[in-house]
Amino acid sequence: MTNFKIKLIAVASLLIVAVMQTSASIKKEKSIKPNFIVIFADDLGYGDIGVYGHPTIKTPNLDRMAFEGQKWTNFYAASSVCSPSRAALLTGRLPIRTGITGVLFPNSNAGLPQSEISVAKVLKDNGYKTAAIGKWHLGHKSPFLPTDHGFDSYYGIPYSNDMNREEEIEGKDWIDGQIILAEKEKYSAYKLPLLRNQQVIEMPVDQRTITQRYTEEAVAKIKTMKDSHFFIYLAHSLPHIPLFRSQKFKHVSKAGIYGDVVEEIDWSVGQILNTLKEEGLDENTLVIFTSDNGPWQTFKTHSGSAGLLQGAKGGTFEGGFRVPAIFSWPGKIKPGVVMQMGTTMDLMPTICDLSGSKLPKDRIYDGFDISNVLLKNGESLREDFFYYRGDQVYAVRKGAYKAHFITRLDMNNIRTSLFVSDPEIEIGKKPTVLETPLLYNLNADPSEKYNIAKEHPEIIAEIRKLLKDHESSINKAIFKKEKELQD
Amino acid sequence: MTNFKIKLIAVASLLIVAVMQTSASIKKEKSIKPNFIVIFADDLGYGDIGVYGHPTIKTPNLDRMAFEGQKWTNFYAASSVCSPSRAALLTGRLPIRTGITGVLFPNSNAGLPQSEISVAKVLKDNGYKTAAIGKWHLGHKSPFLPTDHGFDSYYGIPYSNDMNREEEIEGKDWIDGQIILAEKEKYSAYKLPLLRNQQVIEMPVDQRTITQRYTEEAVAKIKTMKDSHFFIYLAHSLPHIPLFRSQKFKHVSKAGIYGDVVEEIDWSVGQILNTLKEEGLDENTLVIFTSDNGPWQTFKTHSGSAGLLQGAKGGTFEGGFRVPAIFSWPGKIKPGVVMQMGTTMDLMPTICDLSGSKLPKDRIYDGFDISNVLLKNGESLREDFFYYRGDQVYAVRKGAYKAHFITRLDMNNIRTSLFVSDPEIEIGKKPTVLETPLLYNLNADPSEKYNIAKEHPEIIAEIRKLLKDHESSINKAIFKKEKELQD
Repeated sequence: MTNFKIKLIAVASLLIVAVMQTSASIKKEKSIKPNFIVIFADDLGYGDIGVYGHPTIKTPNLDRMAFEGQKWTNFYAASSVCSPSRAALLTGRLPIRTGITGVLFPNSNAGLPQSEISVAKVLKDNGYKTAAIGKWHLGHKSPFLPTDHGFDSYYGIPYSNDMNREEEIEGKDWIDGQIILAEKEKYSAYKLPLLRNQQVIEMPVDQRTITQRYTEEAVAKIKTMKDSHFFIYLAHSLPHIPLFRSQKFKHVSKAGIYGDVVEEIDWSVGQILNTLKEEGLDENTLVIFTSDNGPWQTFKTHSGSAGLLQGAKGGTFEGGFRVPAIFSWPGKIKPGVVMQMGTTMDLMPTICDLSGSKLPKDRIYDGFDISNVLLKNGESLREDFFYYRGDQVYAVRKGAYKAHFITRLDMNNIRTSLFVSDPEIEIGKKPTVLETPLLYNLNADPSEKYNIAKEHPEIIAEIRKLLKDHESSINKAIFKKEKELQD
Repeated sequence: MTNFKIKLIAVASLLIVAVMQTSASIKKEKSIKPNFIVIFADDLGYGDIGVYGHPTIKTPNLDRMAFEGQKWTNFYAASSVCSPSRAALLTGRLPIRTGITGVLFPNSNAGLPQSEISVAKVLKDNGYKTAAIGKWHLGHKSPFLPTDHGFDSYYGIPYSNDMNREEEIEGKDWIDGQIILAEKEKYSAYKLPLLRNQQVIEMPVDQRTITQRYTEEAVAKIKTMKDSHFFIYLAHSLPHIPLFRSQKFKHVSKAGIYGDVVEEIDWSVGQILNTLKEEGLDENTLVIFTSDNGPWQTFKTHSGSAGLLQGAKGGTFEGGFRVPAIFSWPGKIKPGVVMQMGTTMDLMPTICDLSGSKLPKDRIYDGFDISNVLLKNGESLREDFFYYRGDQVYAVRKGAYKAHFITRLDMNNIRTSLFVSDPEIEIGKKPTVLETPLLYNLNADPSEKYNIAKEHPEIIAEIRKLLKDHESSINKAIFKKEKELQD
């Protein structure tokens, strides 16, 4: 070979390397700023998805998402009711820190305070386009609306889909009346507004097509925002009662109307994943599917199942707080089942880390960055979890162990080995502070059946200390101040 | 082109077609005689596998098998206790027809009568090599042993692994004593024989390595039988109590000792599937994984979970009878979740159909051929299921509806909306014939929570008629005769 040829090859090689480096750095640049889509179902139970054990609700899209991505089995909502759970997901902080410790109603003037910084706000400040779709439930008046909290746009019902009910079924109680309204598809019984940004665009909203319309909005947003980095928060109004589904999903599920509704949400997940694939965005988008709390079992077959877990929405047994959680990011996420603890509060620091956004340093966060679990099968930093009801801690988990310090169970009516997972058992009863807490090993006894308090006073002591430390760390002054701001 | 060349091409083409046809017919010939491996776990609950919803038992092999194959969610064992369930799987007939309606013990002289024809016998007559590995429990003396019933070989413990116990823990009852024996790994407390064909080769058998040794035997059998068509019936002795696992699986599971044991069985499934792949047999082998009945919840954390199902081993609620069922046959089975009813009794006619073996025509079968569901996503013929306890039908399922005609529940102590899934509730109580049966819609209410008997007397009437027809169809004379034969 001549010298000239050798030189030519050397130059060419350098050029190739340079081009490769440029595209690698573009790729890297892109990969450190992925898109995020959080899909948040309402009152969907731990056991309501095929891959979480439901025998008659068909969820092929979520099943595939779980198999190809990560399925978390010890993942918690921050509250077993609506508004606090949502505030916590969006801020990465316990409800007691944000002041949203109870459910908001259409007559509430309060909402998520402006002093709180949502994940949308942080991402927007980092150049992301942001869209909120679906149920908000963190204040339906300005300055509490999504567009006041970092979202470029909002499309959805601002609170729960059973609110503003103006019709009753004669001779039927609150529960059966609403079951009948749903079965008759009387969406007009609920005087609910549909908002576009801050404007009411439909009243009462036709709930029969709401899942479909949220999905169309999400698909459209993916397409219009794809040239930027984007964040979509899609909070379904369903399967919260009253149950509605579109014509296409009527009587498709073996599980009845509740199954129809969940299967439509599964379809919606499929639409979103397919759109990402078609647009070539799937390998640069982290999609997270989870639920705000356990099933509202008061509504019988119009509600879901917590699977093998004890308890339901509103309570502090596992069925109230533990929710399905599926993470998808083809090529990035290590597929598998993750049994470490996670919570919706972890999303804020994790999304900040993955997007290179700055987590504000002026406040306490209750979430942990779980990106190393997602991407590297690493260890989560979380070792404990606090089960709040309002502003009180009822139970604490530390590692495998969970101690119940306060309960609404009727302690005189408990069997030795097992509680009744009865919808009413934890709701509407007076709380009792237990002298000896109930203690369960959640890993070996996920159904909280076998109280081992007597055998392990040392574990109770340890958890009690943890609780004390936690309570003293909660800055009640800030909480009170924020509460004043709202009222 | 010359004429000669054209002729040559024509001849060559014909040759190619002929060769292709021959290999196609060889392929067809092979495909109509697949191998079969039935893996039968002992007391594994409906909720004990990841893909059936367990949060802390890690079962990646079964999860993959379910995702790539078929996961059945309404699949039943024929009995909620051991021996009858096994007799039914092997014969395709209800326990009441074979006479094996109760659990056999080491002092039993009875067993599966010679007049019964097992699936192994039918396959053997059709040129298959056959091997039984593991728990038999259909008579431990000749002529009741596997090698008396169509199996070329047998290697295993002939009855339950908690039998012949000769040691107790002072001050501990039957339950806690055995839990402690297992935790101390005192396998020698159980004077159990390990048989090779009809000979005792180890006594007491070291149960700590039994899952491992069963697996090695299965892998060896695949390798030695691969030149023929073969059938392997691998009936694990575990996770029936007392729980033992090999050194490699000690403390691997978050779920404790029970989790360790199930994870070793999952490993075993992986070994078998890998061996099939390595040997190039996977696309010609139907592998079926299921369980003999629900979890024995009397043994607390040493037992499994029925997931969202009510009840457990020994009872007639779903948790006693409904079991995980996974079918794998790469390239042949239509992957997906099957929500149709199936039972272990369906295996006999299905295996006969797929192997071109003749189902004997001189007797009644209670199983249906489900091959069109497996291969073509077709409809199962099964419309009903009978929940026997001994020789009595306690409950009947017809389509979505299940009526309980007899129960051992304390009817004065039942909440309106929910039973207690208590281990003791159905065991050791006296049966009551219910004037008005309990009625559940299992599709919409899989946990049997909401009794709808009052609303649907017409469905109860229909199911009652079905039960009457069934009972009159049972030829009690044959049953009695066979019973005489055994005793």
